[in-house]
Amino acid sequence: MGNVFLNLMDQDEVKEIIESLKIRRRIEKIDLSDVYKRILAEDIYAIIDLPPFDRAAMDGYAVRAQDTFGASEDNPITLDLIEKVGAGDVPLKTLGKRKCTEIGTGAPIPKGADSVIMVEFTNTEDGSVQIYEAVAPGTNLSARGSDMKKGELLLSKGNLLTPERIGALSAIGMSKVPVFTKPTVAVISTGNELIKPGQELRHGKLYDINSETISNAVKACGCTPIYSQIVKDDYDTIKNKINEFNHADVIITSGGTSAGAGDVLRQVVDDMGRVLVHGISVKPGKPTLIGTLPEGDKDIVLFGLPGYPVSALMIFNAFVAPFLREVAGFPGYNQKKESIVLKLSRRYHSARGRSHYVLAKIKGNVAIPIIKDSGAITALAEADGYFKVPKNVEIIEKGEEIKLIPFPSF
Amino acid sequence: MGNVFLNLMDQDEVKEIIESLKIRRRIEKIDLSDVYKRILAEDIYAIIDLPPFDRAAMDGYAVRAQDTFGASEDNPITLDLIEKVGAGDVPLKTLGKRKCTEIGTGAPIPKGADSVIMVEFTNTEDGSVQIYEAVAPGTNLSARGSDMKKGELLLSKGNLLTPERIGALSAIGMSKVPVFTKPTVAVISTGNELIKPGQELRHGKLYDINSETISNAVKACGCTPIYSQIVKDDYDTIKNKINEFNHADVIITSGGTSAGAGDVLRQVVDDMGRVLVHGISVKPGKPTLIGTLPEGDKDIVLFGLPGYPVSALMIFNAFVAPFLREVAGFPGYNQKKESIVLKLSRRYHSARGRSHYVLAKIKGNVAIPIIKDSGAITALAEADGYFKVPKNVEIIEKGEEIKLIPFPSF
Repeated sequence: MGNVFLNLMDQDEVKEIIESLKIRRRIEKIDLSDVYKRILAEDIYAIIDLPPFDRAAMDGYAVRAQDTFGASEDNPITLDLIEKVGAGDVPLKTLGKRKCTEIGTGAPIPKGADSVIMVEFTNTEDGSVQIYEAVAPGTNLSARGSDMKKGELLLSKGNLLTPERIGALSAIGMSKVPVFTKPTVAVISTGNELIKPGQELRHGKLYDINSETISNAVKACGCTPIYSQIVKDDYDTIKNKINEFNHADVIITSGGTSAGAGDVLRQVVDDMGRVLVHGISVKPGKPTLIGTLPEGDKDIVLFGLPGYPVSALMIFNAFVAPFLREVAGFPGYNQKKESIVLKLSRRYHSARGRSHYVLAKIKGNVAIPIIKDSGAITALAEADGYFKVPKNVEIIEKGEEIKLIPFPSF
Repeated sequence: MGNVFLNLMDQDEVKEIIESLKIRRRIEKIDLSDVYKRILAEDIYAIIDLPPFDRAAMDGYAVRAQDTFGASEDNPITLDLIEKVGAGDVPLKTLGKRKCTEIGTGAPIPKGADSVIMVEFTNTEDGSVQIYEAVAPGTNLSARGSDMKKGELLLSKGNLLTPERIGALSAIGMSKVPVFTKPTVAVISTGNELIKPGQELRHGKLYDINSETISNAVKACGCTPIYSQIVKDDYDTIKNKINEFNHADVIITSGGTSAGAGDVLRQVVDDMGRVLVHGISVKPGKPTLIGTLPEGDKDIVLFGLPGYPVSALMIFNAFVAPFLREVAGFPGYNQKKESIVLKLSRRYHSARGRSHYVLAKIKGNVAIPIIKDSGAITALAEADGYFKVPKNVEIIEKGEEIKLIPFPSF
């Protein structure tokens, strides 16, 4: 393969390579009560008329409109009450001339009736009802199929299932819903110095941060993270761990990608599959690796992120998140749409020749750049997002506008 | 109590009443891996220095900076290699004059050393290292506590736990995290006509929509819905169901609140506790009921929403959601901040005297109002949010700006 790492690739080139990667989407049917924020995998057509029958839109009396013509406050018309129908009941009697049926909101309109008089405009006495208002046919009723007819498109494949859309599925009585299966993403932190939060910290050791930041960022992309143990930075250990996750759709590692002595991931991926990218012309995040690992009739996509937590999460957000959202069918977060234009709080000076991602905090309509080294985890805790500095830009002056890309926390 | 329903209250009056309601927040400690999108219940201080020791920021050689002074490409300086320290290892030897230690990124700096030469500026030969660059003390190392010192504030009570902030908790090794317990919200649909999705639809029956829309909207507010069965619209059934949910913080019913024949919720709440609001001067949603039910040393808050799905969800979003987010400590969705200014696609005519909430769809920078009756569930499936028409406004002209409040789906 040659030393791809020495050929740093441009961001756009890397994005093209990522866009060419494919993962087969799977579909599953799940209970209606579990579909919140899942993605619909098929077009859904109304399987019944909505509403399914002519129903009363108000409490009152179902009438033949023509019987009410001429009725007014001064000149009520009297109709015979033949039946009472509440919501959920079925009317048994057909309405003849000068008859009426007491009816509750949502109840079916009896045969023969064509409108409803609101209870406020009536008076009941001894089995007859005085009507104080004339109505046109169709008044205060919702006709069968007036909202949607059987066979019409209700929701589309790819729709995010919000409370409103789940309501629409309920309306047609759907109890099992076809959604895209969440892609599974194995998250592996490599590094001999790393220990798990909760363990005792001995000299030379650091708490593993990337397992948590990356796993949770994976959730925000509509995918399911598979937590791994921390693995030592050596060839066999990393190779075995990758083999263990051959059921995952995507594997994300962090650490073990730099060109230094401890670099082994490159070798593992070279031996197991294909390295597509090793090195991106961007700061932070230069040593990023992208590869594919053949597994049965599919390819597992592997992203090797830098070890530094800030670098790892920035590269994740810039390159991995759009890919994961795409394979999850998850439309939520779109960088172009969602960026916020803010003024820079201070002059920013950047080294030329590499694009830069700069963390920033929002304060009113101002972006405050957070200038810390990429090992600084507190920078992450403070940041609301980041902005890009193109590689040919050296200085952004105080007060110039930048486009802040907020972290996709939801 | 008198007939509160006949005294329709203004929106602002109702909002004040809701703001005066209190629910005691509870705290629980949960596993770090489960904290995504939960709310931190305590201030968190760094319990260790970050980083916890002086560490190498690059692969290379730990040196005493003064030993490198004068070194250049043409004039390398040679140092004796005394030890190799990888990430995770502990250096055992103290660095004397003209000595160096091979060091991996993240490894502790040995005693005596004060800087790191990147491996790119060195050459190794037979136990000695040629240095081609002079460095100042502190170069390529991250000093203990430089990111954050033990005892400093890392995260604040009320912080939403995003991937970045979860990373900060990992950095200090926290494995159990104090978060606010999610308030529990019982969701009850009342109506004799309602059946559960999945069941056979007989004449006169309708599928229950509100259980799903409201339960999922409750999730979007950071609360845990408790699903109920559908209950018949009669006094004893509703009262028993409310008693069954005396462990909930909030109870939300829909249906059974209008002034018509089937109205029983008002009576139940009057008998069990206190009706605070019955009737809001807003369309849709006039028959909304708000009350409190004493339970031990607390009050359960009860919201009685209208039965129509669109009305129920609009009232939920306008009145109930801000309350639930507040009691959940969930900062996510703030109506004032998040509204979007759009131009109206067509003239909108509204009846005076009541505020109106109008569903709308976003297309580019235009809001298309969705004019359907409030029984129409398809309106919900299409809508991206809603805008308010104040009660003294009768007409909004085509092209006028409105503030669209998007549905809080995330």
